[in-house]
Amino acid sequence: VVKLELTVEPEGRRIKAEEGTSIMEAFRSSGVGIRSECGSRGICGQCRVLIKKQKSVSIVTEQELKVLTSTEIASGLRLACQTRLRDSLETKRRIQVEGVMISFELNPAVKKVRAQLLSPNLANNQPDSARLLGFLKEHYGLSQLSIRYIALRKISTVLRNSQWDVTATIWNNREIVEIEAGDTTQIIYGISVDVGTSKIAGQLVRLDDGSVVATDSLENPQILHGEDIISRITYASSDGFSFEELRSLVIGGINDLISKLCSPRVIRKDYVYEMTLVGNSAMHHILLGVHPQSLAISPYVPVISESLNLQPKDLGININEGGNIHLLPLVAGFVGSDDIADMLSTGMYKSDKLCLLIDIGTNTEINLGNDKGIVCCSCASGPAFEGGHVHHGMKAVQGAIERVTIDSGNYDVRFEVIGGGKPVGICGSGMIDILAEMIGCNLLDRTGRIIEDSPTKRIRRVNDTVEFVIAWKEETNKDEDIVVTQKDIRELQMAKAAIYAGCHILMEKREVSSEEIDKVYLAGAFGNYIDPKNAKAIGLIPDVKPGKILSVGNTALAGARMALLSVDIRNEAIEMTKNLTYVELGAETNFNREFISATFFPLPTSAIGNRIVKKEEGN
Amino acid sequence: VVKLELTVEPEGRRIKAEEGTSIMEAFRSSGVGIRSECGSRGICGQCRVLIKKQKSVSIVTEQELKVLTSTEIASGLRLACQTRLRDSLETKRRIQVEGVMISFELNPAVKKVRAQLLSPNLANNQPDSARLLGFLKEHYGLSQLSIRYIALRKISTVLRNSQWDVTATIWNNREIVEIEAGDTTQIIYGISVDVGTSKIAGQLVRLDDGSVVATDSLENPQILHGEDIISRITYASSDGFSFEELRSLVIGGINDLISKLCSPRVIRKDYVYEMTLVGNSAMHHILLGVHPQSLAISPYVPVISESLNLQPKDLGININEGGNIHLLPLVAGFVGSDDIADMLSTGMYKSDKLCLLIDIGTNTEINLGNDKGIVCCSCASGPAFEGGHVHHGMKAVQGAIERVTIDSGNYDVRFEVIGGGKPVGICGSGMIDILAEMIGCNLLDRTGRIIEDSPTKRIRRVNDTVEFVIAWKEETNKDEDIVVTQKDIRELQMAKAAIYAGCHILMEKREVSSEEIDKVYLAGAFGNYIDPKNAKAIGLIPDVKPGKILSVGNTALAGARMALLSVDIRNEAIEMTKNLTYVELGAETNFNREFISATFFPLPTSAIGNRIVKKEEGN
Repeated sequence: VVKLELTVEPEGRRIKAEEGTSIMEAFRSSGVGIRSECGSRGICGQCRVLIKKQKSVSIVTEQELKVLTSTEIASGLRLACQTRLRDSLETKRRIQVEGVMISFELNPAVKKVRAQLLSPNLANNQPDSARLLGFLKEHYGLSQLSIRYIALRKISTVLRNSQWDVTATIWNNREIVEIEAGDTTQIIYGISVDVGTSKIAGQLVRLDDGSVVATDSLENPQILHGEDIISRITYASSDGFSFEELRSLVIGGINDLISKLCSPRVIRKDYVYEMTLVGNSAMHHILLGVHPQSLAISPYVPVISESLNLQPKDLGININEGGNIHLLPLVAGFVGSDDIADMLSTGMYKSDKLCLLIDIGTNTEINLGNDKGIVCCSCASGPAFEGGHVHHGMKAVQGAIERVTIDSGNYDVRFEVIGGGKPVGICGSGMIDILAEMIGCNLLDRTGRIIEDSPTKRIRRVNDTVEFVIAWKEETNKDEDIVVTQKDIRELQMAKAAIYAGCHILMEKREVSSEEIDKVYLAGAFGNYIDPKNAKAIGLIPDVKPGKILSVGNTALAGARMALLSVDIRNEAIEMTKNLTYVELGAETNFNREFISATFFPLPTSAIGNRIVKKEEGN
Repeated sequence: VVKLELTVEPEGRRIKAEEGTSIMEAFRSSGVGIRSECGSRGICGQCRVLIKKQKSVSIVTEQELKVLTSTEIASGLRLACQTRLRDSLETKRRIQVEGVMISFELNPAVKKVRAQLLSPNLANNQPDSARLLGFLKEHYGLSQLSIRYIALRKISTVLRNSQWDVTATIWNNREIVEIEAGDTTQIIYGISVDVGTSKIAGQLVRLDDGSVVATDSLENPQILHGEDIISRITYASSDGFSFEELRSLVIGGINDLISKLCSPRVIRKDYVYEMTLVGNSAMHHILLGVHPQSLAISPYVPVISESLNLQPKDLGININEGGNIHLLPLVAGFVGSDDIADMLSTGMYKSDKLCLLIDIGTNTEINLGNDKGIVCCSCASGPAFEGGHVHHGMKAVQGAIERVTIDSGNYDVRFEVIGGGKPVGICGSGMIDILAEMIGCNLLDRTGRIIEDSPTKRIRRVNDTVEFVIAWKEETNKDEDIVVTQKDIRELQMAKAAIYAGCHILMEKREVSSEEIDKVYLAGAFGNYIDPKNAKAIGLIPDVKPGKILSVGNTALAGARMALLSVDIRNEAIEMTKNLTYVELGAETNFNREFISATFFPLPTSAIGNRIVKKEEGN
């Protein structure tokens, strides 16, 4: 426990207290008299104290905001019962992002410092800018600062209106980007955003302590021009206006998300000073105003992949005008900064364990490696796991069957439905369970053919195709039985084969076997629902021990937040891309062979499975 | 004479020729066959040759632009009769700016380089940006480049439309700010501007060879809100809109000037990549959008004095969107970047000679020093030398008496009129002559009193005041005699006393006498007209030998052009400000004494003059 010393004015008495103690408690235990009528609940306002070093105490509480005026807070007044001592030397904090493996030090690009300047006179008639820069150099050692134009235009007015007592917002220890009257050092926010093809998700974060104030998301408004990336890119090229339309749709979505995050908490957008953005390459290009056409046609080159720092007005994003928008780097045409963020939040790039990270979607990004370097690829796994091209498929939303078991004796099907109640369809994790269970019950052979003469009425032939009934009409919220058809199974086989083949090509590149893989991370919302055992059973992922497989949740958003909270993480992202080898599967001569071989289902042990597969291949 | 070698393909034959020779001449003198039907007049187009190294030949001529298509030129086709050999190693040129003492090396911030890239394929699917940056690093050693957002947005389209053959415009070896299809390396312009209170003057310059393409000026459109700085600042504070109005007036003026410079020469504004701006502190602040109020009230502090690099759209200036606007540093509230430019173009800051630089205006800036450092001040000399507050005063325009001599025998007055013809008033240089001549003829005593009982009818009393007739009504274009009144003389005494006192205070600060001054530079339009002998005779400037006094013309504009053509000069400007001591005359306790003493006119030798003055002071 850290012991701190505080000096009580006007007596000049020095008392000692432990870090975390409230000033009220510290006073009482040392016999310093202080009034309170509400029992330290922060209501009566009697225990006002003037704090000289705001850095040595906890930040202003909601309760204090109710009792004290903003002018009082700006002048340093606090409630002794609400204000806790903290070690001002301990400026670096370690942040743990949920669902993620690694912790890191809080080191945001944006910082606020207070400057109480001497007003000019004839003997000291420095320019305003030099006066401010001189103060910041002297008091904070910030010697390389300049003033961004947007802040420069207001500096004169703010300095004079505030009686030369201001808070400067500083970006990257390099530029003053905002200047505000009085002490606003404790009002400092950032927003991290993951721009997905279907969803835009974001978090509002305090940059002074790294805490998450709010998390929210909305549908990507571009969705009216197609569900997947290719249809968006096609639309972007359809006429002279459509690209700009897509751009303004996604920017509008980001701005709506900012409002959803800030407005309910009465946080002014001007107090949001930085935003980190991740997303797939197409979303990245479109929101940048860079046409994505080259991403969609061979050789699939992005226009730009480096990380970028842009001004909010360049993009039309409604945060503080002097703030910064940081876009994380891309990997390749089909591997975006969301993949970089995935890797950031798993920390695989600085781990000595060999990690396989898979983010399943219409395009599935796969990364294999460790601190010695990473190989990665993107494979066109199609929409089957997201419910597309599957008869009763649906996304993982309310009403979807997400978990399925089949009784190997009587072939009874038990299932779980998202949100409870009766099902209306089957989502990706349900599909994986169905395949695995059907194989386990010998209802499906290794080539993916439904065994039609199985002893259960759940398997039946309808209109020249065979299907398996998961839920009878009366068990559902539909007018029909929920089934999996032979065609559905073929779609799912294609999807899982693409992913497995991608993994296998990367393993070949790294010259490792599945036994050598230490961790398999399943990223993304979908990864959260998958049963790892079944994923392995159907040959979606390499054959590793189930204990090595981890669902890591929305690592893209977590990685974006890490980058928001730490410039070191941003630098690591840049360094990581240098250690990253992108494998273009389309240029791999043995990809087709791997893909076809992977459409088969494995035997319980992959060694035998592989042998059998090869044998059957010969048929 | 430099001998150059050229290789003629496809034969691979090497021939030698002198620099400056046309390719046609070189071929013919070496016996290489080439066709021409127009006698080397660049009309027939028969002598087309493909030039591999454009840097080794002269730039495309107007005649070639008529005969060749832009695609042909971009691919390297030229007319042998029009294209001259040049030494591509001689990239650094020394520039001599007219009316100015020093020469410097051409080293503009903006450069153009051509990049002929390989188009991407599956084996080499680098992003566009990395492909371009990699090429520029490999071929030009530009390893620290990034791409400005504005160029980034168009890079994909331009690369593909040009078949991967582009010209990149690079700022400060740091940022790609523009990308153009084909070879435009020889189309590269900049504009330097001096924003004065009454006039905005500018020059259009080629950045590849430093040559001046055009010089032009226009009236500062703000003039409708007052002639002088103080009335502009007063107007700026008059209501909520007036400041923005002043800003848009001066920006509009600058944009009009750009049009005047570019349009007659059919030069697209997009080919102007940089602008340097100098001006007094008030003009500087207003065009920046920074309110100038603090300049006008004690302690007269500027908001910002550092040099600035801004984007054209920040200020609303119509040059290439990716270009740069460089504002030179200010010295103080009343000493602007025009004064810095004056010093740049005289080179006094790097001379070992002690120089006194005076730029006379309503505010007169005075600089005294050398490479050991400079002291400077601004004095409120008032408008008398510009014709203000003087009965028949006027600016130095058509119809103004600019030169006057008085016959010491019969007191006849001879004068010269600007533009010839009959006069309508007297400008500053005429006023100086009149004072000097009246003293020389004993028509004026040392206190500035007109000696009323002089034996000439030109001196007369009208309405309780004494005046001296310069031109009789019939000699003028007016309905009355042109006269100098006793009150006019008092105004002129105040003006010259302020300037002289300023010089004297600076000499005291440097602890130098007038004998130690090596050069006196009279800058500005007004300085050009002054008779140095008379300026000395009336005690406007310190008593130095007439040969040491030089009129240096529009040094502000010359300095702005030097900064446009050389980043070294910009750095010297910044270094200079560190070696510069600003003296606030209002804070100098002995300024008033110096000022009063300087209102007297000196005796022919200043030593005696000073003694007499002191004696008379005692009266």
